[in-house]
Amino acid sequence: MADVLELAKELIRRPSVTPEDAGCQQLIASRLQRAGFACEHMRFGAVGNLYATRGAPGGPTLLLLGHTDVVPPGPRSDWASDPFEPEVRDGVLYGRGAADMKGSVAAFVVAAERFVAEYPDHPGRLAILLTSDEEGDAIDGVRRVAREFAARGERIDWCITGEPSSTSRLGDLLRVGRRGSLTGTLRVRGVQGHVAYPDQARNPIHQALPALDELASRRWDEGYESFPPTSLQMSNIEAGTGASNVIPGELRVVFNLRYNPHWDADRLVAECERMLGSHGLDFEVGWHRSGEPYYTPEGPLRAAAREVLASHAGAPPEESTGGGTSDARFIAPLGTQCIEVGPVNASIHKVDENVAVADLERLPGLYLEMIRKLLSLPPT
Amino acid sequence: MADVLELAKELIRRPSVTPEDAGCQQLIASRLQRAGFACEHMRFGAVGNLYATRGAPGGPTLLLLGHTDVVPPGPRSDWASDPFEPEVRDGVLYGRGAADMKGSVAAFVVAAERFVAEYPDHPGRLAILLTSDEEGDAIDGVRRVAREFAARGERIDWCITGEPSSTSRLGDLLRVGRRGSLTGTLRVRGVQGHVAYPDQARNPIHQALPALDELASRRWDEGYESFPPTSLQMSNIEAGTGASNVIPGELRVVFNLRYNPHWDADRLVAECERMLGSHGLDFEVGWHRSGEPYYTPEGPLRAAAREVLASHAGAPPEESTGGGTSDARFIAPLGTQCIEVGPVNASIHKVDENVAVADLERLPGLYLEMIRKLLSLPPT
Repeated sequence: MADVLELAKELIRRPSVTPEDAGCQQLIASRLQRAGFACEHMRFGAVGNLYATRGAPGGPTLLLLGHTDVVPPGPRSDWASDPFEPEVRDGVLYGRGAADMKGSVAAFVVAAERFVAEYPDHPGRLAILLTSDEEGDAIDGVRRVAREFAARGERIDWCITGEPSSTSRLGDLLRVGRRGSLTGTLRVRGVQGHVAYPDQARNPIHQALPALDELASRRWDEGYESFPPTSLQMSNIEAGTGASNVIPGELRVVFNLRYNPHWDADRLVAECERMLGSHGLDFEVGWHRSGEPYYTPEGPLRAAAREVLASHAGAPPEESTGGGTSDARFIAPLGTQCIEVGPVNASIHKVDENVAVADLERLPGLYLEMIRKLLSLPPT
Repeated sequence: MADVLELAKELIRRPSVTPEDAGCQQLIASRLQRAGFACEHMRFGAVGNLYATRGAPGGPTLLLLGHTDVVPPGPRSDWASDPFEPEVRDGVLYGRGAADMKGSVAAFVVAAERFVAEYPDHPGRLAILLTSDEEGDAIDGVRRVAREFAARGERIDWCITGEPSSTSRLGDLLRVGRRGSLTGTLRVRGVQGHVAYPDQARNPIHQALPALDELASRRWDEGYESFPPTSLQMSNIEAGTGASNVIPGELRVVFNLRYNPHWDADRLVAECERMLGSHGLDFEVGWHRSGEPYYTPEGPLRAAAREVLASHAGAPPEESTGGGTSDARFIAPLGTQCIEVGPVNASIHKVDENVAVADLERLPGLYLEMIRKLLSLPPT
């Protein structure tokens, strides 16, 4: 399927730094329309979203989920070749988005075209959803579209996200869940004063230390299925005027929780505030909920992906729930089983981002096999 | 002694912001020389020091200790009148240094002149030491002079510092000691990483919390004579890249110890490092020793000052070891008994610094009485 390389190059040539789409979705929509997909452009603010479907809503629906936006490339001079001018060197395609995730998006399109050509009257429904706001705030992208889906009663059974999940070889890892992420910004108020007169001040650093130690050393759980234990990490701490003889008036601490499905954001917020409250602090916490965890237990989707990857790679993939967050977190709450399958992620968000051409050319075949299995169709 | 007001004004008119002396010491030296003092200008770097003595080295020596430098006035517009243009309004003298401590320095000079006029052949030795680096780094001021004194074998029995010790009425407080001050800058090294992968990082905030809590909650002692207990205060804490998803690689904490004579700097350094070391941290501490504590127990100096202040104020003064640091910390290690007696300190280091003219005019008489008592001379 050599065409996937050409399409990936065409997409890389479009400098679609978040929230720009730079024409990627239009190009894809015109190809999918030719293949019989109904295309809906859902624009929210500066963000473009493309929702393409083929088949009747009655049967099972399989969604291929991706994004056309990329992270900024940084200075051109740091790259061996122009980040927006795709170049193949020694069998490797270089360019911003090659791995995250214009390669996967191109593979989705080629797989869908091939699928339609092979099964013009396929049962069920194949859908593709692309956003231009996955790498940014992720407010007006899939989060917003999923709200629209919920309002419409749109039912999606399975979702394959094309995030670059592979670690050293294509297909060596199948992502079956992601932890949730919750960030707290804690402010502890004290009373500023001179270090020589501690009785006339209240040191917010000293006051907060026992509470912070309790938060940092808490064992939240022992893990959940293949999830690692829930973890709290303090990423920033700051207090002081710069002078060594002034007791500061306020302490600020930023901490982030990565949590498995033992917890949800509301219960973590309540638990953290209870722990802080038990230390008699004058405090407040601002919370940012980045996304609830999702988890796909054993079932048809995991089984289909495992079989396809095992037959491709010669060994079953590791099935993992590690890593950061992805847009699957917004689709999973619709009752959808979600997995992530994509190319090797070693170069993502870095200079000279790349994907092996051989991997890229194998990807449409992998997705096609999964589509066939899930919609119960034999290989042609 | 109306002359003290004129001399204080002449000194205030000289804008001697640390380390500038702006001619103050020259002016004073010319007056003291006329009164029979031997004057030695001890210049170290940018700092001027004046050492004036009268009398034979054999007998007891009483030193009056002061400084001619002042802290910066800040914007002129914040002051009701020019900080370097002394002005008397409603019986109060305004100007930078009026209370800290050009008023006291003027009083020293007038008291010395009066003393010499009354007792031209006084027994013992009267000395005055002035520096232009008390409010700054205090490196080339009295610290340096005291080293010179030690090398010379200069013996000083008693020292009266003119720091503004009074709290609400002239003479209501007699300072008989000061705590020591020691500042530590702690760096705890961790390993930077992504909050999603805490196993691949080492969070220096988390690692340090138990050690910091132990330092902050330690009870160092129960106080010493009239000293309050030794106290440790963390004044600055800082870690983090600003991003909420990055575990920082290093934590930095600045803390200051104010300690009584139960401790000295070396033992505190050793104890803090032992406590930190017991927590398995990868750390280092940079130390700044600002000054050892000093304490003058009951004896002729305290007794003389108490009697003079009690007879002036109608009640004995509070005898205190509170507050920050003063240059007495450098003289005390010479084996000298030290006290501090000066005007009301409510306005020092602030805009519209001032001293009541009535207090200023009483000050030479108080110092003169103390000189008489200590050198065993009757009032004339």
